Amino acid sequence: MDPDRVVIFDTTLRDGEQSPGISLNTTEKLEIAHQLARLGVDVIEAGFPISSPGDFEAVQAIAREVHGPVIAGLARAQAPDIERAAEAVRDSERPRIHTFISTSDIHIEHQLQSTREDVKGQARAAVAHARSFVSDVEFSPMDATRADVEFTAEVLQIALDEGATTINIPDTVGYATPQEYAGFLGRLYELVPALHDVVLSVHCHDDLGLAVANSLAGVQAGARQVECAINGIGERAGNASLEEIVMLLATRAAHLGYSTGINTREIARTSRMVSRLTGYPVQPNKAIVGRNAFAHESGIHQDGVLKERTTFEIMDATTIGLEGNDLVLGKHSGRHALRSALHELGFQLDGQALNTAFKRFKEIADRKKHVTAMDLEALVTDELRDELRSYTLEWFDVDVSNRRPPHARVAVRNPDGLEMLGDFTGDGPVDAIFRAINSATRREARLREFRIDAVTGGQDALGEASVVLELAGQSAAGQGVSTDIIEAAAQAYVRALSNAERKLLAVEEEEEAELTPAP
Amino acid sequence: MDPDRVVIFDTTLRDGEQSPGISLNTTEKLEIAHQLARLGVDVIEAGFPISSPGDFEAVQAIAREVHGPVIAGLARAQAPDIERAAEAVRDSERPRIHTFISTSDIHIEHQLQSTREDVKGQARAAVAHARSFVSDVEFSPMDATRADVEFTAEVLQIALDEGATTINIPDTVGYATPQEYAGFLGRLYELVPALHDVVLSVHCHDDLGLAVANSLAGVQAGARQVECAINGIGERAGNASLEEIVMLLATRAAHLGYSTGINTREIARTSRMVSRLTGYPVQPNKAIVGRNAFAHESGIHQDGVLKERTTFEIMDATTIGLEGNDLVLGKHSGRHALRSALHELGFQLDGQALNTAFKRFKEIADRKKHVTAMDLEALVTDELRDELRSYTLEWFDVDVSNRRPPHARVAVRNPDGLEMLGDFTGDGPVDAIFRAINSATRREARLREFRIDAVTGGQDALGEASVVLELAGQSAAGQGVSTDIIEAAAQAYVRALSNAERKLLAVEEEEEAELTPAP
Repeated sequence: MDPDRVVIFDTTLRDGEQSPGISLNTTEKLEIAHQLARLGVDVIEAGFPISSPGDFEAVQAIAREVHGPVIAGLARAQAPDIERAAEAVRDSERPRIHTFISTSDIHIEHQLQSTREDVKGQARAAVAHARSFVSDVEFSPMDATRADVEFTAEVLQIALDEGATTINIPDTVGYATPQEYAGFLGRLYELVPALHDVVLSVHCHDDLGLAVANSLAGVQAGARQVECAINGIGERAGNASLEEIVMLLATRAAHLGYSTGINTREIARTSRMVSRLTGYPVQPNKAIVGRNAFAHESGIHQDGVLKERTTFEIMDATTIGLEGNDLVLGKHSGRHALRSALHELGFQLDGQALNTAFKRFKEIADRKKHVTAMDLEALVTDELRDELRSYTLEWFDVDVSNRRPPHARVAVRNPDGLEMLGDFTGDGPVDAIFRAINSATRREARLREFRIDAVTGGQDALGEASVVLELAGQSAAGQGVSTDIIEAAAQAYVRALSNAERKLLAVEEEEEAELTPAP
Repeated sequence: MDPDRVVIFDTTLRDGEQSPGISLNTTEKLEIAHQLARLGVDVIEAGFPISSPGDFEAVQAIAREVHGPVIAGLARAQAPDIERAAEAVRDSERPRIHTFISTSDIHIEHQLQSTREDVKGQARAAVAHARSFVSDVEFSPMDATRADVEFTAEVLQIALDEGATTINIPDTVGYATPQEYAGFLGRLYELVPALHDVVLSVHCHDDLGLAVANSLAGVQAGARQVECAINGIGERAGNASLEEIVMLLATRAAHLGYSTGINTREIARTSRMVSRLTGYPVQPNKAIVGRNAFAHESGIHQDGVLKERTTFEIMDATTIGLEGNDLVLGKHSGRHALRSALHELGFQLDGQALNTAFKRFKEIADRKKHVTAMDLEALVTDELRDELRSYTLEWFDVDVSNRRPPHARVAVRNPDGLEMLGDFTGDGPVDAIFRAINSATRREARLREFRIDAVTGGQDALGEASVVLELAGQSAAGQGVSTDIIEAAAQAYVRALSNAERKLLAVEEEEEAELTPAP
């Protein structure tokens, strides 16, 4: 491979999915993984198989169905973790096990309540065990940037001796500056010359706003794999944004000299899909994928761009797939037109799935003059959630006024097909309908978060509602799409409720099976 | 001053306010400026006075009423701009004029359609003219990072000869890498030794995700002023985030050695105020001020933090003022309790303003058990918008159902006090009420953007609606807060409509007065 080719390791489905309130089901994770493959990422970290049966199932499904990228599963440096990860990725054409253990004293002492000697032993055993299942093994010394560099070097030497093929240096708490991080990697190269024979990787968090710069500094110091996530999601302030890293390397390629295998024209769509399925919005001023990233507001800037685009633009919106989405359907468009429009968007729908999508499309087209590519994406992504839904919203009526409290009546069909009625007079229409759904389903769910976004602009925009609720200590999220925000909200609530019930069921099953080892 | 003290120059009200869809009125800008003073910024760039009468008025009001920080007005390198800026900041205790002209050939040729010689002449005349009004003059060579460094150095030497006291080096298009940017500043120091005698400043945009890292590289290369904005708002992907720069310098002070004058405990509140008044959301995974910046989701991280906080936390949420907001009022709280709660939040309300706030508080307390500090902030900020409102929403009724199209009826009081009725059957309840408002006011406004956010969590959260609409080619924004999202949406729409009408009126006045010079 070209020595300046940088491997893009996407952790949207692992570190990204660890963000509070995100709970993707297997269908949703598979859809994201397929899109990541279209985007051209080199490695998909698909999950942490031992952490839950759901995570295991998703990693296994992705390993079986997604072709092209390496499929990685995460595992602590413990035999049961590694065995579970090995089982999950086994059916991939290119399986990887990613195992980790902390090398910082603060983690060893407080988190692991262990010793440096034990850490070395665990690292050795873990890498060796992983290599007994797969030839592609990645090892990470967690919290490396706050660890003693000499001790970290010793542990890396052990991992290399046991056959690790990628060594990743995480800035777990987002603490390093670019100079420090590059210095740390440089020192590791000196202490462990064998690092030159494997792929060195960077994994940076954005707590101080430096994730992208630290990743770049790492690449300039010799790393050739960058771990990152779509929209920069992940623990706390998240991981380095895939789209920022990739567009930085692409836009400044002449100066920096690196390349990636990413098809940048898939960036905007991937960003929208991840935002929609996770319920995590992208702020308007987010680099690359924010709504304003390519907008020019001041008179001076607008004037400049009109005279010569490059006066204020260093990237072209078409390179990330933002334009060219001019595909528009209307109420007279037929099944064939819908099918080929969906095909163009990367969705392969046939048979019953196409029929359902067509019915849904017609409903929207009746209410909305132009159905755009982004509307279609939202509808199809919305459909993906349906097959697992256990409650169904049949109908609702809400009276809203500022002259009396809002009253909501709903009918919800339960998983057994029984229609259940509920009503409630609440503080606002959304509050009223949510509580009416609780009353119909006889559930005491509590709303934690609620958000509405417009999918597309204009008067007849589709609204997308996101709900996070808590049921019996279990939090779960749900989304809904409609031209009616009350309907979207009710859909989202019903789905979140269904997700919470499924999670509660899974926890019960898990407790029975005692699948989880001690940490 | 301590040689390692970094001046924080806040451009939220200038570069930040240039973001699409933001239109702050003078009351709102003043409130933000007061909060920036409480935050402890050294310089407030309050606006671009020649750009509109509204901008002029706001800069003048801030110069007169906000004490502590330097108040700067922006001006192109043209006499009328500088005179207008000088007039606007004249009454400040510490006025600054910030003048700029591009030094990159791409800008000189295409944007200015001028020559390098002319640029030098304009820069000389502009700085000299500015110095005839104020002793504190900042000069920026726009698009410097894409300019010839030798030519830029010549222009800077001229600006210094004429008495510029701060020299700012903008990475206008967000193109530079940290190494390049530091190298560019280092070369300027070599070419223009007199730069050592003034304050060098950095102004970085986040197009490639490097704004904070570039600012840090600039400081390490000798700059002692950082231009930044709350929540990183600004043109395109925005400016460096004030909160990220400040917390980077604070968290890594022992290693980096720099200090600022910021009271970090005001960061969270400032971020919320700016988000609310601009209508720009902060994404959950935004560093420092995102909802999740201090959240820990994975079992491993939670376990670690419980055992020892520093295992996964490098900053304490209380240092940015995120916790300690446990102040809660209820329906039995009196006027005195409200007044002292508001005082604690930095709002000084007396007389009629306190009465209005109290009435509003009681309405909410009737519907919501606990009124938190964040609710109060939202209510008071919401009240700030009222005095300029020209239409008022009197009442509304909406029938919402998925079994028939939603029907809305509204009564709106116009600026002359006349009650006007309207009704509409729309695609969704929000669409119906917006069109009913159009029908009542006989206006053909078109919705451009619509968003709903929860102010606080939980079932009885306040909803905040943001609307951007277009009326006769003029776009304007409005926000509304209520426990009822339909009411919040209707409020936001009525306010956006009022703002659009005021803007149209201002444009008419401006055209009559011919205030604007040729660019």
